[in-house]
Amino acid sequence: MSDTNDSTAPAEAAALRRALELALRGPRHGVNPQVGCVLLSATGDVIGEGWHRGAGTPHAEVAALADAFARHGSGAARGATAVVTLEPCDHHGRTGPCSLALIDAGVARVVYGVDDPGAASSGGGERMRGAGLEVVAGVGAAEVQEAIRPWLTAVRCHRPFVTVKWASSLDGRAAAADGSSRWITGSEARADVHRRRSDADAVVVGIGTVLADDPELTARGEGGLLPHQPAPVVLGRRAVPDGARLHEHPLPLRRFEEHDLDAVLAALYEDEVRSVFVEGGPTVASAFVAAGLADELVVYLAPTLIGGPVTALGELGVDGIGAQRRLTITGVDRLGDDLRIVARPAPSPTDSTVTAVVTTKE
Amino acid sequence: MSDTNDSTAPAEAAALRRALELALRGPRHGVNPQVGCVLLSATGDVIGEGWHRGAGTPHAEVAALADAFARHGSGAARGATAVVTLEPCDHHGRTGPCSLALIDAGVARVVYGVDDPGAASSGGGERMRGAGLEVVAGVGAAEVQEAIRPWLTAVRCHRPFVTVKWASSLDGRAAAADGSSRWITGSEARADVHRRRSDADAVVVGIGTVLADDPELTARGEGGLLPHQPAPVVLGRRAVPDGARLHEHPLPLRRFEEHDLDAVLAALYEDEVRSVFVEGGPTVASAFVAAGLADELVVYLAPTLIGGPVTALGELGVDGIGAQRRLTITGVDRLGDDLRIVARPAPSPTDSTVTAVVTTKE
Repeated sequence: MSDTNDSTAPAEAAALRRALELALRGPRHGVNPQVGCVLLSATGDVIGEGWHRGAGTPHAEVAALADAFARHGSGAARGATAVVTLEPCDHHGRTGPCSLALIDAGVARVVYGVDDPGAASSGGGERMRGAGLEVVAGVGAAEVQEAIRPWLTAVRCHRPFVTVKWASSLDGRAAAADGSSRWITGSEARADVHRRRSDADAVVVGIGTVLADDPELTARGEGGLLPHQPAPVVLGRRAVPDGARLHEHPLPLRRFEEHDLDAVLAALYEDEVRSVFVEGGPTVASAFVAAGLADELVVYLAPTLIGGPVTALGELGVDGIGAQRRLTITGVDRLGDDLRIVARPAPSPTDSTVTAVVTTKE
Repeated sequence: MSDTNDSTAPAEAAALRRALELALRGPRHGVNPQVGCVLLSATGDVIGEGWHRGAGTPHAEVAALADAFARHGSGAARGATAVVTLEPCDHHGRTGPCSLALIDAGVARVVYGVDDPGAASSGGGERMRGAGLEVVAGVGAAEVQEAIRPWLTAVRCHRPFVTVKWASSLDGRAAAADGSSRWITGSEARADVHRRRSDADAVVVGIGTVLADDPELTARGEGGLLPHQPAPVVLGRRAVPDGARLHEHPLPLRRFEEHDLDAVLAALYEDEVRSVFVEGGPTVASAFVAAGLADELVVYLAPTLIGGPVTALGELGVDGIGAQRRLTITGVDRLGDDLRIVARPAPSPTDSTVTAVVTTKE
């Protein structure tokens, strides 16, 4: 790894922030990560920009090279610096390896944020170093990791990133004693749910929720179906009724009768599902949380009290308070009259490096 | 009521905001409301300020007159305007009526925010009008009402203002399955609880909480006991153990064996308790909410999931979702890692005046 503290560092850090902005224009769902790329001339000027627009389209680096060629001619990238959010891939997929494209274009230096964790796609940095390019890793890494956490988690864990969502009253109830729950949350919270469904590859519910609520499991906006639909997934043994509304979903239904969530997630990953949005009910949501498989929680709290037996989460196996599942809250927002709380599992004490400083008098 | 839209209105509105600031310097607890007063000369200059510092001390108007006399001599208030947050009292209590004090000082005009709802103390406005003073009511009334809502509620309802507080996990649990609950919330949330205890006249818990947690029910800060302590109140039939820590509370314990909360609150009001801070446990908190007696809710949500049977609120008698207890959230704040949500019962549809506008074509 080269020294990043040279005179080009500020321009490259700014270019990486811009590359991350570009990356986030791409789709959050799908097999490929969101990636952005900015090409800088030897004098630090931006000569090309690109981002990945989804599976089957050019990767960010190739898009940025094409942009530079169109703007400045075919030799434009010679001696240039490519600033990329993710390590350029070394993978012959539907498109050629980005590492080769950068080498072939005469790029002299590559600066990227996060190493590619993919077994098939990593190694781009190594190949480019071997070809004589200067390669700097880890610039803006924390921001990039945060932005593409779902994809990184999926590729590292070989299972989809799991978001568990529920809506409850302030006292944690999902419904009244008779099971009725319509309109606990308001329209803004419900619209947010649909946007988040659309960002996911699949929506997961238990058969109990299908039988109780007959959900469509589509992602809808004011103009009808949103452009991207998550695949509907139903867990549990009981049959989905023939007339269930989720049969009208544009994507085929995936059914899992088993209760082994690891096996369910492994099968979904095999089918190129990289993110799932778990919408309950309480039994399914609790099972993901209890298994330690909830990477993110999105909780809509409505300004209401319901009491009684229908809690939004059920049994988590927390017998004593020492076993509670501590969280880190990453966002609190008011959506209409409701609150949206986004959280993730708190890092366990062993996750952070604590250095004890011992001062001794001589 | 006189016209408020004259040329002195802006100066008087500003003086009323100042009077409210002064009012809030006084104690929140106790029989008397927080009141502030600003005296303006005929030219609109502030010539005196005062606020009520607690039972047995001068009322705000008398304090402001004393301030004006000290600063400008004994005739200073002649022809002046008194701007007061609350209607000046007409009551011979531990101090004389403020209405008379203002008349005697030669004040020409009195502007106040909110009518005094007290049966014994109201009538000051009428007396002053009868003495030839110009009296304007309702300036800044909404802000004053909001600021002294607990006292106004107590006097209007002839019972203490009731704040119900609980701390729970994000999924609404007060403890793990074995009852253990120590340190669900962090130190900032706990400090906030102690400050709110100190603002109340009494703290109410059920005997179950006494037996389970052995609380002190004192209001404590970093330096030990806070200056004002709420009276400890325990509800329920079982006996308080001889060795219970609340016997060390500086104020005597009030015991109620009955379950009729109206009777409990009426007895406390009779004893000059104007605000109670209900700290649970779940049975007592739920009883206040179910009875419609919770004027304010203070909920501390810890970033943790617990699941299982120990919910922070129990049964509220909400059989169908139509009977849910809708709330208005008035504050959401992060205290350390925790969230504090302050809410109150949502106004019922009949509380607001909805005017239907019908347009007809001729």
